[in-house]
Amino acid sequence: MTHDLTPRPLNPAPPAPDFAWPGGKKSAVFIGFDVDAETAWIGNTPANVNRMVTTSHGGYDARVGIAKILDLMADLSLKGTFFIPGWTAEAHPAACEAIVAAGHEIGHHGYLHKLPDRDRLDEAYDEIDRGLAALKARLGVVPVGYRAPSGENFPELLAHLTARGLRYSSSFRDDIRPYRHLLADGRPGPVEIPVNYAFDDWNFGMTARTSPRSIFGRDMILPLWRDEFAATHDWGGVTTMVLHPQVSGRPMRWHILRDFLTEVAAREDVWIATGAEITAHYEACEAAR
Amino acid sequence: MTHDLTPRPLNPAPPAPDFAWPGGKKSAVFIGFDVDAETAWIGNTPANVNRMVTTSHGGYDARVGIAKILDLMADLSLKGTFFIPGWTAEAHPAACEAIVAAGHEIGHHGYLHKLPDRDRLDEAYDEIDRGLAALKARLGVVPVGYRAPSGENFPELLAHLTARGLRYSSSFRDDIRPYRHLLADGRPGPVEIPVNYAFDDWNFGMTARTSPRSIFGRDMILPLWRDEFAATHDWGGVTTMVLHPQVSGRPMRWHILRDFLTEVAAREDVWIATGAEITAHYEACEAAR
Amino acid sequence: MTHDLTPRPLNPAPPAPDFAWPGGKKSAVFIGFDVDAETAWIGNTPANVNRMVTTSHGGYDARVGIAKILDLMADLSLKGTFFIPGWTAEAHPAACEAIVAAGHEIGHHGYLHKLPDRDRLDEAYDEIDRGLAALKARLGVVPVGYRAPSGENFPELLAHLTARGLRYSSSFRDDIRPYRHLLADGRPGPVEIPVNYAFDDWNFGMTARTSPRSIFGRDMILPLWRDEFAATHDWGGVTTMVLHPQVSGRPMRWHILRDFLTEVAAREDVWIATGAEITAHYEACEAAR
Amino acid sequence: MTHDLTPRPLNPAPPAPDFAWPGGKKSAVFIGFDVDAETAWIGNTPANVNRMVTTSHGGYDARVGIAKILDLMADLSLKGTFFIPGWTAEAHPAACEAIVAAGHEIGHHGYLHKLPDRDRLDEAYDEIDRGLAALKARLGVVPVGYRAPSGENFPELLAHLTARGLRYSSSFRDDIRPYRHLLADGRPGPVEIPVNYAFDDWNFGMTARTSPRSIFGRDMILPLWRDEFAATHDWGGVTTMVLHPQVSGRPMRWHILRDFLTEVAAREDVWIATGAEITAHYEACEAAR
Repeated sequence: MTHDLTPRPLNPAPPAPDFAWPGGKKSAVFIGFDVDAETAWIGNTPANVNRMVTTSHGGYDARVGIAKILDLMADLSLKGTFFIPGWTAEAHPAACEAIVAAGHEIGHHGYLHKLPDRDRLDEAYDEIDRGLAALKARLGVVPVGYRAPSGENFPELLAHLTARGLRYSSSFRDDIRPYRHLLADGRPGPVEIPVNYAFDDWNFGMTARTSPRSIFGRDMILPLWRDEFAATHDWGGVTTMVLHPQVSGRPMRWHILRDFLTEVAAREDVWIATGAEITAHYEACEAAR
Repeated sequence: MTHDLTPRPLNPAPPAPDFAWPGGKKSAVFIGFDVDAETAWIGNTPANVNRMVTTSHGGYDARVGIAKILDLMADLSLKGTFFIPGWTAEAHPAACEAIVAAGHEIGHHGYLHKLPDRDRLDEAYDEIDRGLAALKARLGVVPVGYRAPSGENFPELLAHLTARGLRYSSSFRDDIRPYRHLLADGRPGPVEIPVNYAFDDWNFGMTARTSPRSIFGRDMILPLWRDEFAATHDWGGVTTMVLHPQVSGRPMRWHILRDFLTEVAAREDVWIATGAEITAHYEACEAAR
Repeated sequence: MTHDLTPRPLNPAPPAPDFAWPGGKKSAVFIGFDVDAETAWIGNTPANVNRMVTTSHGGYDARVGIAKILDLMADLSLKGTFFIPGWTAEAHPAACEAIVAAGHEIGHHGYLHKLPDRDRLDEAYDEIDRGLAALKARLGVVPVGYRAPSGENFPELLAHLTARGLRYSSSFRDDIRPYRHLLADGRPGPVEIPVNYAFDDWNFGMTARTSPRSIFGRDMILPLWRDEFAATHDWGGVTTMVLHPQVSGRPMRWHILRDFLTEVAAREDVWIATGAEITAHYEACEAAR
Repeated sequence: MTHDLTPRPLNPAPPAPDFAWPGGKKSAVFIGFDVDAETAWIGNTPANVNRMVTTSHGGYDARVGIAKILDLMADLSLKGTFFIPGWTAEAHPAACEAIVAAGHEIGHHGYLHKLPDRDRLDEAYDEIDRGLAALKARLGVVPVGYRAPSGENFPELLAHLTARGLRYSSSFRDDIRPYRHLLADGRPGPVEIPVNYAFDDWNFGMTARTSPRSIFGRDMILPLWRDEFAATHDWGGVTTMVLHPQVSGRPMRWHILRDFLTEVAAREDVWIATGAEITAHYEACEAAR
């Protein structure tokens, strides 16, 4: 793949259009979980499959994390979107079925959590197709949303997602409101529900043997989240969370998340919605224009 | 390029001279924005051009960040300096034209945000010349100030900047007050308005897939900025900010910046000025000596 | 070693069973110390043996850290588990004997703190066997517990630990309560007392010449620990600490640890226990089922 | 150089002996500055000599930092030890002469701040000898103390320091009180005044283009320092600071340092002393035993 450095917006999609959130709400909150399990560690570093402690971070998902997150969501009567790699659905079917049974949305998150690489188109397409097959076969689900594993994307992949019926993506960091992707050939692509990396718990709640770094707790994270949410709310945006049960399903972090969501859920002017609901609303507004 | 390790000040410029800030002000604040857009990600890593999520950090500039920053500056009736790579002006002309239309100073920030490398003189000169051409052609602007992309410089580049009419640079970290560069041949170079890396929002407000790290919010940054400003003010220095719309134009960070600038702007004893204004004042003082 | 990416739980052990802590306690606290001494620096980077300042971090153990930690534990009348690499026992016998004399449990922590590598089975087995021999010869101890140096493990190693009589492991991060490992051949493996990386002092209390980073003090760590403990307690889990005398034996950190343990020890509903005690309780519950 | 992994204390020096601080003081504070200037950046990475912004961090020493630090020490009537690489003395003689004129101790800090490498003995010896020659020729000083540039040491270097008349070293992290090094041949080496890395301002006050990371301000550092000092004081140790004018001579950090030292200087029970004074006291105690 050559490197075309011609000056142009590298994301050709037009800016987010002006539309109102449903029911007069001022902003939306999209509670997204990436249920990576072990794939977070083996997808891009297959040698980790022989490192049981490294992968045990991911193993927390099926043993503890997913169930705890489901409890939390049930306690607060909230619905979220769980992006599940196909491998995870195959390796941990019971834990994943519990997510489905609880009525949450299931999103696509690749097959083995491989970073989509434009230099390896076939592998990237295969990740999509195997992921779809696995979610269908194991969970009986046909997802409408996709979050890129390791957070990467490229034009051909957006086209492939569209061809496979994926109606939204939630990976980009270039906006605070949803917009519709524009494919390279001029056709419309998926709706994008952009993420806010202040809500990616991996950044402050995970460490690794190979690069030790401090984690940060309640005193730092709860104000950070309150502040980022308040500002996004003030601007009428969508607060898209990128949570991981192997991080936010741990004891302290679970309570931080619970307290944040409790505060948000108590507000009358916030629309807490799944990716599918936000996409459907976006599409309805689009059709009405 | 050989490595001449002969002992001598590696910056041959004499120390900052003693001069008074205009109107009896005790210190100056220079609000500088680097409008990198995608160039922050592709300039030194061209392969990133095929990674749409990585570059979407930069895409935030044209979609949201620049407009939000312009709103903030207008609300506070402040003028700043926006250092724009030529590529950005060509890729996002409307967003850049809005900066010009709002009456802010436009500074030079290279063409593709390539790190100036003394081992590649032609590339470094080309970055300057293409940047100048792009700012002229797209924005009708001839900048007088330069901030090195990725913050690097070397003697031949200072000479080239001088030859091209750039009157000031704002990249060095070796002083708290402006001084004039001395070229290798003894001629005067540009005025330097040194930067303070405590005000570089990239350090605490950005993270990356390839090296996850925590970001820090209001509770840590606002006191840090207040304290660093108060100390620089006490010493009669210049508080040079290195802000990026793709960082400080995000919801939470925008409010932190707003609150900090509101406090500074309320002071009677601070001169908030663009780089061009500071340079003109320096030159006038110099001429009067 | 090939990379078998077949979807399945990479840790085949069944989830932690439901059992009650002794005496009606609501949760357990396992105070574990890794007495790495110099091995933390030379085990995986032998060239560091010629870098006396780098290894002096580890030298702190025998000069100061171990004695200070023993004082602290005695002051609070607490018993903990000290995981000692064989090399440490041979290099610093007096300091290690003092641990034994104080009545603490001695655990196995490899011989030279080499990362267990599934591609080098003989080396991994040798680390176990030499470690056992050294603890026996120098300290007269036959350990029943093992914590993986550099925190790594794999199926053959779990089998080898079992063959050598190790009854528990404390390295995995996939649960908040003890469980029993399942060996690849279906036989039972050691009990796992999973660790909580929020209590690994290396992450926030160590820095290194080759990768400078900030350390964090009382104001951040004590709330983090209180919060993580409270949450783990609420869930009935085990708070497993991963402390190092060369970190938590330093002046400020020692006081943070003292204050945390004092608070925990004052509670009526917490069982502070060694790894051996927790394992014996687990085994008794298991036998009773 | 082979890697001798034989189990033994890698620092053969006996533990710090028991001795009283002078005048009934409970602990000592050793205020040490590393006046690296540009050598911090070019010593181990000669290519940086062609990167003027990178080296401008170091240029801050001679322009601003050293003078500000001297002001601070004069204001508080304190004497400290300034470890100066030979290159710095040759490149910035006026700034270094001002340190001498102010009556502070001058320590040895290598010539070009090269990491002492046991695989390059001649280079390591040459750094010592050229550093001594430069301090003598430019500053008329014969230092009695040495701090290893980039903080590294090895047996042959300790012997060379002894042969060159250096009476103390201040680099090791393995104790909280001074002790005497033991050379490989059994002769006594220099006294060690061990450092405390919580007081190394580089860890939390510096960032770099090539590895951006947050810096931390007053709210975090002043409590950290107060706490670490209080604990070291409580244990009767020496609080050895590793400060850099290019870090702690910056506006905010200068004020943090001033406030910390003001508090310490106000105490009746603390002995603030130079490395030479501490060494002389140690030697006197040793002679009296």
